[in-house]
Amino acid sequence: MQWTNFSKLDSYKTLETLAKEPVCLKTAMAGEGGAARVAEYQVPMAGGLVYSYAAKQVDSYVIAALQKLADEAELTEKYEALYNGEVINTGEKRMVLHQLCRGQLGKDVIADGVNKREFYVAQQKRAGEFAAKVHAGEIVNEKGEKFTTAVQIGIGGSDLGPRALYMALENWAKVNGCFKMEAKFISNVDPDDASAVLAGTDLAHALFVLVSKSGTTLETLTNETFVKEALKKAGLDPSKHMVAVTSETSPLAGNPDYLDSFYMDDYIGGRYSSSSCVGAAILSLAFGPEIFQRILDGAAAEDELGKNKDITKNAALMDALIGVYERNFLGYGITAVLPYSQALIRFPAHLQQLDMESNGKSVNRFGEEIDYQTGPVIFGEPGTNGQHSFYQLLHQGTGIVPIQFVGFKKSQMANDVIIQDSTSQQKLCANVAAQIMAFACGKDDENRNKYFEGGRPSSIIVGDQLTPEALGAILAHFENKVMFQGFVWNINSFDQEGVQLGKVLAKKVLAKQTEGALTSYSKLLGIF
Amino acid sequence: MQWTNFSKLDSYKTLETLAKEPVCLKTAMAGEGGAARVAEYQVPMAGGLVYSYAAKQVDSYVIAALQKLADEAELTEKYEALYNGEVINTGEKRMVLHQLCRGQLGKDVIADGVNKREFYVAQQKRAGEFAAKVHAGEIVNEKGEKFTTAVQIGIGGSDLGPRALYMALENWAKVNGCFKMEAKFISNVDPDDASAVLAGTDLAHALFVLVSKSGTTLETLTNETFVKEALKKAGLDPSKHMVAVTSETSPLAGNPDYLDSFYMDDYIGGRYSSSSCVGAAILSLAFGPEIFQRILDGAAAEDELGKNKDITKNAALMDALIGVYERNFLGYGITAVLPYSQALIRFPAHLQQLDMESNGKSVNRFGEEIDYQTGPVIFGEPGTNGQHSFYQLLHQGTGIVPIQFVGFKKSQMANDVIIQDSTSQQKLCANVAAQIMAFACGKDDENRNKYFEGGRPSSIIVGDQLTPEALGAILAHFENKVMFQGFVWNINSFDQEGVQLGKVLAKKVLAKQTEGALTSYSKLLGIF
Repeated sequence: MQWTNFSKLDSYKTLETLAKEPVCLKTAMAGEGGAARVAEYQVPMAGGLVYSYAAKQVDSYVIAALQKLADEAELTEKYEALYNGEVINTGEKRMVLHQLCRGQLGKDVIADGVNKREFYVAQQKRAGEFAAKVHAGEIVNEKGEKFTTAVQIGIGGSDLGPRALYMALENWAKVNGCFKMEAKFISNVDPDDASAVLAGTDLAHALFVLVSKSGTTLETLTNETFVKEALKKAGLDPSKHMVAVTSETSPLAGNPDYLDSFYMDDYIGGRYSSSSCVGAAILSLAFGPEIFQRILDGAAAEDELGKNKDITKNAALMDALIGVYERNFLGYGITAVLPYSQALIRFPAHLQQLDMESNGKSVNRFGEEIDYQTGPVIFGEPGTNGQHSFYQLLHQGTGIVPIQFVGFKKSQMANDVIIQDSTSQQKLCANVAAQIMAFACGKDDENRNKYFEGGRPSSIIVGDQLTPEALGAILAHFENKVMFQGFVWNINSFDQEGVQLGKVLAKKVLAKQTEGALTSYSKLLGIF
Repeated sequence: MQWTNFSKLDSYKTLETLAKEPVCLKTAMAGEGGAARVAEYQVPMAGGLVYSYAAKQVDSYVIAALQKLADEAELTEKYEALYNGEVINTGEKRMVLHQLCRGQLGKDVIADGVNKREFYVAQQKRAGEFAAKVHAGEIVNEKGEKFTTAVQIGIGGSDLGPRALYMALENWAKVNGCFKMEAKFISNVDPDDASAVLAGTDLAHALFVLVSKSGTTLETLTNETFVKEALKKAGLDPSKHMVAVTSETSPLAGNPDYLDSFYMDDYIGGRYSSSSCVGAAILSLAFGPEIFQRILDGAAAEDELGKNKDITKNAALMDALIGVYERNFLGYGITAVLPYSQALIRFPAHLQQLDMESNGKSVNRFGEEIDYQTGPVIFGEPGTNGQHSFYQLLHQGTGIVPIQFVGFKKSQMANDVIIQDSTSQQKLCANVAAQIMAFACGKDDENRNKYFEGGRPSSIIVGDQLTPEALGAILAHFENKVMFQGFVWNINSFDQEGVQLGKVLAKKVLAKQTEGALTSYSKLLGIF
């Protein structure tokens, strides 16, 4: 297997040439030709989903070149190496094993004498059993009363993924009889974050889930103390109200300060940890372990599809390759993620971390500079809200922003009204269909202010309903998309050295070891 | 006064030349020179705020060129024309009067025989008096009981600004004894949005605020029906539970279906309507009219400062001009808005609409094509959360993303803990100070993976605390920044023709008047 810089590959030149005369979406998507594209350019996914890329600037030539790139860069072989336990995270010299949390994709991976899949499953199971005991009233507070609220304390990957998944299923669970406990989240070191959450929480019946792999994350430990002081002030024993999710080597592991501890390890990065016991603990508390398992099942099925060498049958790979084509050859630096589903309101925030922290890199996996662009900026809000906000720029701005839509045929809560002969859900779906075509084909108008240039590419993931399986498939889709793109760019998508410098300088400020402008800013901000 | 395309101005060429050798931030911000820049490059704002631009790629030459641009493009003169009632919104042939909601900046503006400032103030006052009666138990539900929750129904500008302001002051109000009622918001046409809000609301004691200027916004009217059906199902009379905020000519005006109606007009765009009765109604209900007035006072004071021709004394103007320099000459297409304040969690979503809907345009105010870039893409999340998410790309990605930080010396809730000799608030502030310097100066390292290039520009708005006055000043700052940039680009920042095409096509889908790919997508999404 070769790890080669993207610009050294033959397919780089092929794509560069093709991009000189990019597909005209306005023409391609018009008339019956457009309908034929929609029929042809889609890939089935797990969880009953479909990935449609008809409104992307691709044709049979581009797709052939992308297939050539996938083969030449050995993308599925690299994926295979990853799930079989090769040290893919070169910076930190670690394996990358989050897919094992949801399925056995290849060989057994043994490290330090432990079968890693068995280890991850055992920890998920322990977290699930703990949750079941909480629900059954077997694990209770000091007065023998049931816990009613779970509060996660974590930041970054210990917050964004689990929070997005919780919000994605909260209302679905409520109407489907599997809502067990409300979940809340404390993340920011801003004291107003913890203060506000605690002020709105019945502390006597609250169970806190402290999540830090290293057990040394300053924000999280600070918020832990914040919470413990509040519990003590309320006359409660913090050790009866808190569990830890951490690594076995951390100071939080097996510590009597916690009711129990559940473990992950260094082979699962924070932003990839939602399907580990990081997600298992809070989501099993909220919805029960069965629902968490259904998320894993959806993710596992999608992971399996990711093995396919044929890009027209591998949605994550196709999505990744089209994204590379857009980024490196069509010059688009941003991707908008626009779910037509209120339940996915925080999913774009999770994807921001997943994508930007993984692929926002300027050196290859060997620490050498590269001469091409890497990961784009990701942002997004749910439609139709975004339509009444920033879509103006997407339609008529001076730059082009590729779009990733997500939509579902059915709502989660099955409560709807008919106005002007259609349900709200039909209106929602009509809007996303309309937007795809408006972006692709635009509209002529003699009044230039009402003219839409078109040629603005989008893809869409469509599902029947946002169920746990569909959610798991979407989660895995984006994880695998980001992984494949990292392989193309020959970067290490699994470290995050870019977050270190800020931490070091913040410590200097707090220790008053500053000089020059850092002193000035510290004074301006009233720190000293 | 001249309305000239930016690229025709003399200062365009000057700035283009200066940008060929941009200021090296790494050098400029190092050592005592950096400290001197922090001392010099700041502008006092209203509400006790300071705008600091020391970590931007400017020096005395660039600042002189930007001043020349401000003078040549007659930016403050155009602002004066705007608040004196000139028809600045050329596309829709309307005046632009939102600043009158908070102060009399120039001449009286009379339209249709009405003094517009008096009209806006009268409507704010009516909304405030209505709220005071609700608080006093003079306006009550059918059973004579007090309302306890206010629920806004609106989308876009009728949602994002008021929601961001509510969230910004919710906790401040709670600890300062001026929290009157909880506010909730329904916006998305996704039926799960309204269903979830209604499921968590005590309908018998809920007062709904329906906001639609035209009275014809489909999403809002759909959600109104959704709410009315829920009220009826609960045995309640919708007309006793709802007020309307609309224009005097809309079907909602003076309609007996509502307890009362409050009015705005066509001279206030949705994204600029937070300081009109759109904000007055919901924020007076939540916090009382006195607090809403304090927001207006902060905004009014900032509007006054916006008149200053000297850019070093006019924060909005300086911010606007630096943004133009970055967009058009340094080639940066994105701005990250990163408030180190959990209370401002939804402020970036408001700014996305404000900026991207105003300046995401490709034609000038006369409907002619332009040959330069306009508004950037805006995104953001609160720090320190973002640090553990997408900052990796901001520090080490292949592109440069300018940053707008916001920070406050004091927290809102004044509840804090000391860990490792510092409070959470000090840690929060230390982090933002550290980030500014990390982005500007970077760090050398032989290991390229741990190397930080630096040269990444940021500015910061610093305040003592996020009070109503400070919030009002921040709101006005960004409104005025966007306005000044629109003037430079010679575009109309006050219409949004780019949102129309999607609406038209969505209607076609719902009427089943589709063909080609639009039919295919409609089928894929299960609409028919």
